[in-house]
Amino acid sequence: MVFVTVAIDSAILAGNPLGDPARRRIGVYLPPGYEHGTQRYPVAYVLVGFNSRGTMLMNESPWDENIAQRMDRLIASGAVQPMILVMPDCLTRYGGSQYINSSAIGHYEDHLLQELVPLIDNSYRTIAQRDYRAVVGKSSGGYGAVMLAMRQPQVFGLAASHSGDLYFELCYKPAFIACVRELQRRDGDLAGFLRDIHMIRPRDAASHTLLNTIAMASCYSPNPASPHGFDLPFDLHTGEIIDAVWQRWLQWDPVHLVGQHAEALQSLKLLFIDAGRRDEFNLQFGARIFCEKLKQHGIAHVHEEFDDGHLNIPYRYDVSLQRISEAMGRL
Amino acid sequence: MVFVTVAIDSAILAGNPLGDPARRRIGVYLPPGYEHGTQRYPVAYVLVGFNSRGTMLMNESPWDENIAQRMDRLIASGAVQPMILVMPDCLTRYGGSQYINSSAIGHYEDHLLQELVPLIDNSYRTIAQRDYRAVVGKSSGGYGAVMLAMRQPQVFGLAASHSGDLYFELCYKPAFIACVRELQRRDGDLAGFLRDIHMIRPRDAASHTLLNTIAMASCYSPNPASPHGFDLPFDLHTGEIIDAVWQRWLQWDPVHLVGQHAEALQSLKLLFIDAGRRDEFNLQFGARIFCEKLKQHGIAHVHEEFDDGHLNIPYRYDVSLQRISEAMGRL
Amino acid sequence: MVFVTVAIDSAILAGNPLGDPARRRIGVYLPPGYEHGTQRYPVAYVLVGFNSRGTMLMNESPWDENIAQRMDRLIASGAVQPMILVMPDCLTRYGGSQYINSSAIGHYEDHLLQELVPLIDNSYRTIAQRDYRAVVGKSSGGYGAVMLAMRQPQVFGLAASHSGDLYFELCYKPAFIACVRELQRRDGDLAGFLRDIHMIRPRDAASHTLLNTIAMASCYSPNPASPHGFDLPFDLHTGEIIDAVWQRWLQWDPVHLVGQHAEALQSLKLLFIDAGRRDEFNLQFGARIFCEKLKQHGIAHVHEEFDDGHLNIPYRYDVSLQRISEAMGRL
Amino acid sequence: MVFVTVAIDSAILAGNPLGDPARRRIGVYLPPGYEHGTQRYPVAYVLVGFNSRGTMLMNESPWDENIAQRMDRLIASGAVQPMILVMPDCLTRYGGSQYINSSAIGHYEDHLLQELVPLIDNSYRTIAQRDYRAVVGKSSGGYGAVMLAMRQPQVFGLAASHSGDLYFELCYKPAFIACVRELQRRDGDLAGFLRDIHMIRPRDAASHTLLNTIAMASCYSPNPASPHGFDLPFDLHTGEIIDAVWQRWLQWDPVHLVGQHAEALQSLKLLFIDAGRRDEFNLQFGARIFCEKLKQHGIAHVHEEFDDGHLNIPYRYDVSLQRISEAMGRL
Repeated sequence: MVFVTVAIDSAILAGNPLGDPARRRIGVYLPPGYEHGTQRYPVAYVLVGFNSRGTMLMNESPWDENIAQRMDRLIASGAVQPMILVMPDCLTRYGGSQYINSSAIGHYEDHLLQELVPLIDNSYRTIAQRDYRAVVGKSSGGYGAVMLAMRQPQVFGLAASHSGDLYFELCYKPAFIACVRELQRRDGDLAGFLRDIHMIRPRDAASHTLLNTIAMASCYSPNPASPHGFDLPFDLHTGEIIDAVWQRWLQWDPVHLVGQHAEALQSLKLLFIDAGRRDEFNLQFGARIFCEKLKQHGIAHVHEEFDDGHLNIPYRYDVSLQRISEAMGRL
Repeated sequence: MVFVTVAIDSAILAGNPLGDPARRRIGVYLPPGYEHGTQRYPVAYVLVGFNSRGTMLMNESPWDENIAQRMDRLIASGAVQPMILVMPDCLTRYGGSQYINSSAIGHYEDHLLQELVPLIDNSYRTIAQRDYRAVVGKSSGGYGAVMLAMRQPQVFGLAASHSGDLYFELCYKPAFIACVRELQRRDGDLAGFLRDIHMIRPRDAASHTLLNTIAMASCYSPNPASPHGFDLPFDLHTGEIIDAVWQRWLQWDPVHLVGQHAEALQSLKLLFIDAGRRDEFNLQFGARIFCEKLKQHGIAHVHEEFDDGHLNIPYRYDVSLQRISEAMGRL
Repeated sequence: MVFVTVAIDSAILAGNPLGDPARRRIGVYLPPGYEHGTQRYPVAYVLVGFNSRGTMLMNESPWDENIAQRMDRLIASGAVQPMILVMPDCLTRYGGSQYINSSAIGHYEDHLLQELVPLIDNSYRTIAQRDYRAVVGKSSGGYGAVMLAMRQPQVFGLAASHSGDLYFELCYKPAFIACVRELQRRDGDLAGFLRDIHMIRPRDAASHTLLNTIAMASCYSPNPASPHGFDLPFDLHTGEIIDAVWQRWLQWDPVHLVGQHAEALQSLKLLFIDAGRRDEFNLQFGARIFCEKLKQHGIAHVHEEFDDGHLNIPYRYDVSLQRISEAMGRL
Repeated sequence: MVFVTVAIDSAILAGNPLGDPARRRIGVYLPPGYEHGTQRYPVAYVLVGFNSRGTMLMNESPWDENIAQRMDRLIASGAVQPMILVMPDCLTRYGGSQYINSSAIGHYEDHLLQELVPLIDNSYRTIAQRDYRAVVGKSSGGYGAVMLAMRQPQVFGLAASHSGDLYFELCYKPAFIACVRELQRRDGDLAGFLRDIHMIRPRDAASHTLLNTIAMASCYSPNPASPHGFDLPFDLHTGEIIDAVWQRWLQWDPVHLVGQHAEALQSLKLLFIDAGRRDEFNLQFGARIFCEKLKQHGIAHVHEEFDDGHLNIPYRYDVSLQRISEAMGRL
């Protein structure tokens, strides 16, 4: 096994509004045999969830493999063909970028498409074709995988989402009133919260929920004219939904985008969607709704549910990586 | 103190779709001096919340007064002038009627207006004028008070809502996904749940939430063509909101009705709205939103928040009854 | 059906340390036929739980019968023979007395034995023999039933406990640290809490837990030399269990008293113990432990578990009243 | 910064009853300047909590430093003098060893004392004296630090516990009944749970609690004659505490061991104890009780509380490492 971290100096992320670094460390897994061979390999981009960087997929845990150990095992057993895995870093000060472009956070989709993919194809012996380039992710990373598949089918020919953010009505909206309460507990000091965001103690569920909602607002309803660069979709005093802002969020909800991107989705060699039946963020329902829309548009896909929640489910990568490998066909 | 229960045989409720009784026992509180005098008195109709009948306001509790003891004390202290209180019974098999007309439940608004008010005015020495007829309630009863004030200003000249159902987006919608989960746990057997509704054990939070949502659907989205007489505003499998049904609910949400009933609301001698700052059903936010709309339409009102939750707050009747008494003016 | 309330002026409760009333209203249910006959009837004393008075068994609820309606139905169906029910009032300022004697609260066991039972036997056509006098209760009332059966077998020949307080290690001790937290949140102001005990808002779970623990300390570890008349079994700052006090509690735990009262228990015509399998206070475990001890001492008993929690289970009285009736034998 | 992992083949752990590996990877942090100098350095052994290995202190997290970055910063700022950090691996199949010897798990205390400390002193330029050898840890690691300081004062002259397991009555016992419930949900199949321990899905709070309790029983009440090598301190059916087993646990509770090890504790150059005021496992109370006992025995110590819970508190190492450095005195 070879795992390397590659530094990339992003011109696109340079000067981003949150002051996040333009230099990122990208994790790259190279399959056994890569070093002493000349063969070209398929690539899967692995997108991590909220509050994570790609290299965290290499973290040690007591009982689970890291991504490289997992991939070594899958390749050794023959379940997955040798592939390169790439682990981007799209973490931001607010916890994430959803892998999209936003005036409030930075142009992370552009960074991936225009900078990272070319760098990888230039640096490693990839098969630089969409049919051998997959994108897979979990949670916010699952969202990213679905969005990239819809918007960039010329780049990614296969996509897999584990417990991805789908159907914002159920995965985000229920948290809004908790944010109103938390902000009122903080005397409405949103500016202070944003300033001290990583010093805040305790980092409890309420502050995490607020942070997550702020991150999503930065992604889905950025507004350069707004004091903090984004609009919140609810009134801070009454909790009333501000429909004009909420509609901007919905334009980023994959369940509403299927029709618009049907052709792209039909062109995929694999579209894999799963979620746990006990997902704490209702994402199994989002997955069901999304797959209903896929069916309505005649888009082939694989839909699975498993008996678990949202957390501690890296074992699901076994399923997606095998599906990806099979859909590419053995080389 | 005199508290009497009066039987009323309702022609309007007879043959109602849920098989609920047409004979109802109405609680009536008569002020000290009523029995041996000839004076006429103002009347306040007190509407109870979900899963209650008016006569339950006379239940004994370890530390609180019942409604008659409360009223005796308020009158004795001079805080409230002598008044008659009337406690309707609009309980249904599903737990409530919201004091409105519905093809799925029965015509409870009509029952109140066409049967109960005349009966009371005929049976007791009331001042049978809208300026001396108030409606006050808590929770679903607060909702009823607001609706009757908007829709029947010729009957009720004063209204007070304690923690009333306002802004359905926050007080009902968050429960929908819990209903989906609960129904799936019951193998989707909605018919069985409806059939056994009062035999179900344990009566836990999940089954209560489902019952409450069913009751509200029966009130807000009845549908004689539907198998159970009502439409649910969400898909039982995917949890997706069914917008056409949800829009029917919103036509019953007071926060969206202010403009339409502005004249009625302006005509009130009192419009009192409160909620606890810790309300478990977000009703303090609904109250704020409703009062914002009142302000926008130049409608006079009193808005209070108190430091408590949704339950065990009968002491708030002290405030509303006093406000009602003052607004009527001493006779 | 005849339900009467009887006032009793208790000499034993007069001047009790909490200033609770010496005059109590006792609920008495008389079976159909009582008024116009001369027959004598068996009696069951029904002991209510924490924060209740006996007369609250007559409260109206949306779907359940009150105790008199329940008894009428059971008698009419032949399931239960005609019996008198007596509903004592042993409520105190702290929420309860556990039906025992305590220097901190009053001598409630004495009140029952020396005042109430004689009054009932003198006032009503009872069969004034222990084999026709049962005691049944729920929660703290179940505890009372078990204790009276053990300590006063010459008075009560049958006992039934629904979800009674058994095994203090699991039903009380887990709450102690919550009390420490709650008192620290209140700046350690125990005196203030005791003074304002029924004004406290919100009456949330934490304040209820504290109240309950104070009541139990007043019952199980009274101490006239202590500032408030009782000792708490834990340190208010560190939370450490004060073993000397805790041992005094355990002397009141039925699971430790079986051996000492084995003869009394063996003499009972019925000993019925149940609890819900989902009891929120672990009382199903206490019931199992108690019944194990009964078995070890060769004491006949009936042990049932049902699929419900601790609350809203008045339907269990159907089972105990029928068992009591059968054990007495038809007259 | 230099961070190395050192393999150790433990003769003591070889053939341990759980089949855990005898070869362990130990993390070692070497301070700036170590590589090109000849100086000797103090050493701090850093003990991780339940379900962790020492090398996990190097895991990447979105906002926190890993232990080496933290130490580099503290040394660079002058807050801490250059020191070596050693991160043992005492993880077991059940999630931990508490750093003690147990017939059910293995002899981890012996491993540390007889194998690891000598290896480190032989392999690195340490000051191999107890006054320059500290032990610090968090949670179960805090427990380990306190126990090693009490039992091995000739080896460790300084000890710091962050949120360490103290006062088993509050940190372990409240979980027992949850274990009974969880095992009953699993049809009492303890053998199956132990066999599949790391396959179990979902890994929810209930299964984690059961695992944790099993691990502690393996540490505190091992029993070679018992089917699984340990005794549980409660009855699996009734939940009754088995006092004989519980007393064996208490012999491992530091709050009961202070008197017995007073001399060792008095000899320490530093004894630092902290916990968060919101600790989810009540460990702030354990810390208070332990420090009370220290006071009673005239043992110098530092006691701090901070405004946080049990998780995500690596920033507390800043405080302990600085205290350790100061107590050693600048070299």
